[in-house]
Amino acid sequence: MPSIFTRIVNGEIPAIKVYEDAETLAFLDINPASRGHTLVICKAEIATLTELTDAQLIATARTTQRVAAAVQRALHADGFNIVQSNGAAAGQEVFHYHVHIIPRWHNDGVFTFWHPQHFEKDAMATIADSIKNAVNL
Amino acid sequence: MPSIFTRIVNGEIPAIKVYEDAETLAFLDINPASRGHTLVICKAEIATLTELTDAQLIATARTTQRVAAAVQRALHADGFNIVQSNGAAAGQEVFHYHVHIIPRWHNDGVFTFWHPQHFEKDAMATIADSIKNAVNL
Repeated sequence: MPSIFTRIVNGEIPAIKVYEDAETLAFLDINPASRGHTLVICKAEIATLTELTDAQLIATARTTQRVAAAVQRALHADGFNIVQSNGAAAGQEVFHYHVHIIPRWHNDGVFTFWHPQHFEKDAMATIADSIKNAVNL
Repeated sequence: MPSIFTRIVNGEIPAIKVYEDAETLAFLDINPASRGHTLVICKAEIATLTELTDAQLIATARTTQRVAAAVQRALHADGFNIVQSNGAAAGQEVFHYHVHIIPRWHNDGVFTFWHPQHFEKDAMATIADSIKNAVNL
C-alpha cells in the first residue's frame, strides 16, 4: 500500500505544490502550524532520515534550503523552524520521509518548545561514550 | 564576538563531544529535551540554514544523519526528532547554525506538537502562488 505522499507524487490525490524536481517535491501542509507551513518530501518512499541514500539526503537538504528561503521571502516571515520526525514515538504519522518548514513571526506562539531535563555530569559522559562508540560502528 | 559554539570549536569552553570532522562537530546539548539530545553544528559561524554554502549544507546533513543513527542505536531510542530553528522569532538562541537530534521513546511526552490552523482553500492557493514565485526568483 503506497503512502499518502507516494499517491501525491503519482498524482492520485491532490496537493498544493510549490516546488518539484526529479528527486523531491514540496507542497503545503494541509494541517498547517502556521501560514505557509510547507512539506518537503523525498519522492522515493523511504521512511526515515537514517534510511535515505546519500543522494536522497543531499537532494532533500538542497530542496529544503531552497524552499525555506522562498517561504521566508514570499511571506515576509521573521524566521522558520525545520522539524523532521522519525518513528511513531517521535510523532511521525506518515512513514515517508518529510521535512516540515514552519514559517514564524515574532510572538506568534505556534510552537511550544521542550522543557530541559537535568542529567548529572557522569550520566552525560556515559551517554556521550555510548554515542561515540556507535558513531564508529 | 564569536558565538558560544565557535568558542567550543576553538576549545575555549568545554563540550561533551560525540563526533567531529573538518566541517562539523556534534556534542551533547547542556539543556537536553531528552536523554542523549545532541547538537550538530557547522564549524563555520553561519547563522541560519539559508546562509549555508552548498558544501556546508551537505556536510551538516551527512553528520546529522550519521550521528542520529548512532544516537538511536546507542540509546535504543524508539525514534527521534530533528529540530532546527532560524531567527529569534523561531526560538533560535545561538545565532550559529545547529541541528537538534532529540531521541524519543514511546509516551515520553518530551515534545509538544503544534495545533493545526485552518486556512480557506483560496488563501492556501494564494500562499502557494507567492512561494512558487519566490522559489524561481
